Amino acid sequence: MSRVITVGAAQLGAIQLVTPREVVLTRMLALLDAAAASGVRMLLFPELALTTFFPRHNLAGEDTVDAFFEAESDAEPDALRRSNPHTKPLFDRAHSLGIDIALGYAEKWTAADGNVMHYNTLCYYSAQTDAVIAKYRKVHLPGTAVPTGGAQEQLEKMYFAPGDLGFPAFRAPGLVDNALKADKVQIENAEKIEGLGDPILGMLICNDRRWPEAWRSYGLQGAELVLEGYNTCAYYANRPTSVTEQEALAVFHHRLSCQAGSYHNACFSIHAAKAGNEDGGLLIASSLIVAPGGQILAESKTSDDELITATIDLAECRAQKEGVFAFAKHRRTEHYGRLIEQTGVVEPPLLSWPFGA
Amino acid sequence: MSRVITVGAAQLGAIQLVTPREVVLTRMLALLDAAAASGVRMLLFPELALTTFFPRHNLAGEDTVDAFFEAESDAEPDALRRSNPHTKPLFDRAHSLGIDIALGYAEKWTAADGNVMHYNTLCYYSAQTDAVIAKYRKVHLPGTAVPTGGAQEQLEKMYFAPGDLGFPAFRAPGLVDNALKADKVQIENAEKIEGLGDPILGMLICNDRRWPEAWRSYGLQGAELVLEGYNTCAYYANRPTSVTEQEALAVFHHRLSCQAGSYHNACFSIHAAKAGNEDGGLLIASSLIVAPGGQILAESKTSDDELITATIDLAECRAQKEGVFAFAKHRRTEHYGRLIEQTGVVEPPLLSWPFGA
Repeated sequence: MSRVITVGAAQLGAIQLVTPREVVLTRMLALLDAAAASGVRMLLFPELALTTFFPRHNLAGEDTVDAFFEAESDAEPDALRRSNPHTKPLFDRAHSLGIDIALGYAEKWTAADGNVMHYNTLCYYSAQTDAVIAKYRKVHLPGTAVPTGGAQEQLEKMYFAPGDLGFPAFRAPGLVDNALKADKVQIENAEKIEGLGDPILGMLICNDRRWPEAWRSYGLQGAELVLEGYNTCAYYANRPTSVTEQEALAVFHHRLSCQAGSYHNACFSIHAAKAGNEDGGLLIASSLIVAPGGQILAESKTSDDELITATIDLAECRAQKEGVFAFAKHRRTEHYGRLIEQTGVVEPPLLSWPFGA
Repeated sequence: MSRVITVGAAQLGAIQLVTPREVVLTRMLALLDAAAASGVRMLLFPELALTTFFPRHNLAGEDTVDAFFEAESDAEPDALRRSNPHTKPLFDRAHSLGIDIALGYAEKWTAADGNVMHYNTLCYYSAQTDAVIAKYRKVHLPGTAVPTGGAQEQLEKMYFAPGDLGFPAFRAPGLVDNALKADKVQIENAEKIEGLGDPILGMLICNDRRWPEAWRSYGLQGAELVLEGYNTCAYYANRPTSVTEQEALAVFHHRLSCQAGSYHNACFSIHAAKAGNEDGGLLIASSLIVAPGGQILAESKTSDDELITATIDLAECRAQKEGVFAFAKHRRTEHYGRLIEQTGVVEPPLLSWPFGA
């Protein structure tokens, strides 16, 4: 049974430190309207979509920092949808257009006990349920926890705590029209359930896409579509090559990670960039939609606000999920212990001939 | 400190069911001599390099099957080097040339208790120690354990047991000239040891290269060079596309897996094909040498016997190992449990809104 939908990535061009929130919102609404005009049912916005990529700056003062975060709490978990003036209009529009959206933002979370945590977050809004139904907090924070004094910092480890939710896959209700529902009669009559329910989605943020463990965590939950937003620096520190060569290398590594992640886990994926020259820091573009075979189905052509779309059939994941990557048949978990038993590298002893010595 | 060596892949063209062993040996010796003339210090031969890829056939009779296996045992673990007439001349030549070799073969192993096991194996021979110092048995066996009746079978699960050695990285003594040795004075005087000892190698066989768990197991041991031999079918079952398109797709998936594995684990890798039309089954070529950044440094141009080489500096791995892929700083093993706690896919329940429902 086909499971066809049109999906999109809403790439954003640069947002400067001084860009007003209203300007960003207007740009995002325009991309959402364009998506609706293209028949898109699910639209992904980038990581930290509402502001500049502020972790490049060593910001002073709690108030200054707070201005880049959205407040949420146990008391009001759905504030982005319900009350936040910078985001509510976006969800209102998505609701009226019947489009699911995923949105990256800096989350300031206040728990019931008053404890405050900061995360780099992506949330998923379902138009059918008119609610944020899933949240992902970035697990793999790059950079340093202490400023280096350079013109361009990477201070995610200072501003954010590592995500505490793991990699929870979820279903997007109504995203394909003919999905098997949680209906007792349907389920009892179905020969099989796998691959027939509401679409299974997972979310990643930026650096996460370079970590096969993150992709595999979703693959093991049957993910059919992985969403990833990013702000990726086009420079590499301490390389003697030209800016053009460095940007090409950064794009190469980005594509390689997205294509391999999709292929090895037999899922489609969407990747939305914040791109362009932000506050003197150049970000790569190359927003992507990738097939389960790793092929690039759509890629952005500019470094500005740009919509890319593709009409995909989630059923195309099945051949790979039941063939070369049928995990239940082929994975050998008895040999994977090292992946969780150690965090860093443990080299073999200097003198080591384990066989025949 | 630079750690420069010249390495090579000895791609083999087709070997038919009827090709005599002596012909294959002569071809391998010619490639070894060519490697010596190119200054190669480490040469990789393909998976099952000594025979045709026999798992495509449903062979009848123990004697017929045995003809494709090399006998080894607890009593004679180094039989390939010491006594096997089909392989000893190759090791003799490697020894006289001072070249390390890695060689894929079908292993029939007799344990001290008389138990016999069959594996798809790659062994590593060190010219400096004149011994096989490491062995890898293929973990990820593709295909089926029961014949399907097709003209081209994939019966690795019938002929072989899954590897029982895990992914043991090892050091190749003397492979670079200026390595830190297991010398008490040197070690006590060294500011750091990581990345300065004898080169750290890992081995994979064919389908293993599509499994990020396998690569990561070596990455976590500081591997600087991963060796992989393969026999990869150029067809995909049940695809309506042309043979040319299918071969291109198979090569694309091969390159993608090799490049991503090297990049995500900051290691060089060498990939040696058995290629061409074997017994009516077309195998891809595209033997590769890949840099830690994922770039292809060398690739075969034919589907015949062909040597490819590259002069590489293992020290180039360090920037990535200490930067974006500094595992100790960035990995979050508390979220990776699913990778070993489950083998197959567990989909989310049909009705599941984990957040805000």
